[in-house]
Amino acid sequence: MREVCVAGVGMSEWGEVWRKSIRDLFVDAASAAIKSAKVDHIDSLYVGCMSGGLFVGQEHLGALMADYLGMAGIPAMRVESACASGGMAFRAAFLEVASGASDIVMASGVEKMTDVSGDGATDALATAADQEYEVFNGATFPGLYAMMANAHMARYGTTRDMLSAVAVKNHKNGAKNPVAQYPFEVTASQVASSVMVADPLRILDCSPVTDGAAAVIVCTPEIAKKLGVPYVKVLGSAVATDSIALAQRADMTTIKSATLAVAKALKMANKKLDDIQFAEVHDCFTIAEIMVAEAIGKYQPGKAGAAILAGETALDGKFPMNSSGGLKSKGHPVGATGIAQIVELYKQLTSKAENGRQIPKSPKIGMAQNMGGSGASSVVHILEVA
Amino acid sequence: MREVCVAGVGMSEWGEVWRKSIRDLFVDAASAAIKSAKVDHIDSLYVGCMSGGLFVGQEHLGALMADYLGMAGIPAMRVESACASGGMAFRAAFLEVASGASDIVMASGVEKMTDVSGDGATDALATAADQEYEVFNGATFPGLYAMMANAHMARYGTTRDMLSAVAVKNHKNGAKNPVAQYPFEVTASQVASSVMVADPLRILDCSPVTDGAAAVIVCTPEIAKKLGVPYVKVLGSAVATDSIALAQRADMTTIKSATLAVAKALKMANKKLDDIQFAEVHDCFTIAEIMVAEAIGKYQPGKAGAAILAGETALDGKFPMNSSGGLKSKGHPVGATGIAQIVELYKQLTSKAENGRQIPKSPKIGMAQNMGGSGASSVVHILEVA
Repeated sequence: MREVCVAGVGMSEWGEVWRKSIRDLFVDAASAAIKSAKVDHIDSLYVGCMSGGLFVGQEHLGALMADYLGMAGIPAMRVESACASGGMAFRAAFLEVASGASDIVMASGVEKMTDVSGDGATDALATAADQEYEVFNGATFPGLYAMMANAHMARYGTTRDMLSAVAVKNHKNGAKNPVAQYPFEVTASQVASSVMVADPLRILDCSPVTDGAAAVIVCTPEIAKKLGVPYVKVLGSAVATDSIALAQRADMTTIKSATLAVAKALKMANKKLDDIQFAEVHDCFTIAEIMVAEAIGKYQPGKAGAAILAGETALDGKFPMNSSGGLKSKGHPVGATGIAQIVELYKQLTSKAENGRQIPKSPKIGMAQNMGGSGASSVVHILEVA
Repeated sequence: MREVCVAGVGMSEWGEVWRKSIRDLFVDAASAAIKSAKVDHIDSLYVGCMSGGLFVGQEHLGALMADYLGMAGIPAMRVESACASGGMAFRAAFLEVASGASDIVMASGVEKMTDVSGDGATDALATAADQEYEVFNGATFPGLYAMMANAHMARYGTTRDMLSAVAVKNHKNGAKNPVAQYPFEVTASQVASSVMVADPLRILDCSPVTDGAAAVIVCTPEIAKKLGVPYVKVLGSAVATDSIALAQRADMTTIKSATLAVAKALKMANKKLDDIQFAEVHDCFTIAEIMVAEAIGKYQPGKAGAAILAGETALDGKFPMNSSGGLKSKGHPVGATGIAQIVELYKQLTSKAENGRQIPKSPKIGMAQNMGGSGASSVVHILEVA
């Protein structure tokens, strides 16, 4: 297997971007990535997108996006694993370069979520859950994560303040991120008094509905050196799955797919968890960040909430999590999120994080954990600065 | 890049399968492939599916199918390029084994198309076209291919009899295929007098709406030898794209993506087109088979129709095309079609084609051409018996 690296990154505007279509968002991010990596072509394109069909009536995004990037003809395909679609696109690009089939591949993600009306976005997102056993019976994603939160609180004594601390921390980071959809700080009392969505999750416990795209250039280190751009090496790449339906899992207070994927990625990278200095994790709801922090092995079950409340995962903490602002503040265009995590790792590892968002200790190794549904898919990547 | 082969294949029932859900269809095909290859595990799973979201309200098929196969935990993801989704799943599995990341990977495809009502299937399929420039203005797939057919007829004098000859040949082959949705012969006069869908295309020029799944086991030749099963080597794998909207193409009487993908696949395989002894091609409409036969270089532009009418592509002809019955007779569960083409290549190359469908000359090398939309994506594979 060949060595693989990331040699450039790009993001579109994120938010309620009503003036741009899904193809515009993609082209903005892709063009920025191309400029960042200084490449004059790409050999192949992967587009992560959860549901172009339900959100904008457009499948077949691989060919469409290749064409609108001015590159009709190149190999292109879409990959999907619900909200882990972006991470899967990165995984696919990694494998293509690792195999030797291509030298320069773009991994991208995009979602245009605000063009639907009424419950359209919630309904589209629900297709990441088990249609026959969960959605048919009325479950939505806030409802599923609320059940997980209640179970976690009942077993471990996780508190409202711990949930709020995740939102407070991530908004504090996101306030320094120029692409964040909600680039402002929130207080714990604002979170705790925000409108209830699905008990115990309130609106400020939830990541937003977002339009946005992100793209990265994946190539070999030799090519990155020739391009003369900073690059970060992909040390580990792993995917794991679990039953989609919560009722079919042994334990709904943890994310087993994250545990499995991190273990595999660490093994591939030949690293220990303690070697990882910071992480972007999938905080689609505040409880998710707490559960993932435990599932990846950073904290014992039931211990992450208190650690986050104590500031251990803040930008200047022992183990910064979601320096980008996370899904919570930065936004969550579901197909793009996994790529945006790689963008943040690249920026932190190459000391390019904007507006005082740089992690003070200048980390050398970081991890991205992107997940689909209520954790049935996790894709984990470990990156190291060259 | 490691050598890669196909070591087992499986199909579900194909047709209007109202008693089975999308997950049942997948499990039927996947179980058959596992049995065929005699493997006791798989390292990873790819699921090709065009629109689980629009057809059955279910995205996130990677994790779902891994779980229902009894393998929750393994890496799994869905890939999509409209009706080329199956071929793309095979391509992704090929790259994963070629890279060395995994040894035994399942490539599968599935679509459950008959659970929608009214125009649901036509509307879902239309998301493979350009939503903003084609679908918004009322174009459907029969309409788009009818425009291509009219242009081809106007430029080259392609006739009604030539279109009918494609349907007659493919139904003759499909009548010998135990999984075919429409396993019966049709006459040219039946095709020519069947109900008009979009002039000049009649209902017997169109592939049907189908429920079905297909799966293959992709591994290294060393593993296939250890398993003690027949296997076929993957000599070439290539993808190419084109503008989705017909109005944005230089020429709508050919399929440029097929021309590009075949050239790349032949180069990778180090073969000439004359080395290819038979092919499965994407006959979603009769005109498509004629245009693809020309685009891949087998016939000069405008010459394929007469050759097909003369029997050159029949089972006992010089260059058999669609020995399986093709999409036309076998059925077209859009995400599964590209994998079913690989199943047919495997059967023909290992002399396992059923019911007298075996190509008489016992071919050693075959090609599969699977395409998405009105040809904006083509994925081509060249396989050789070991």
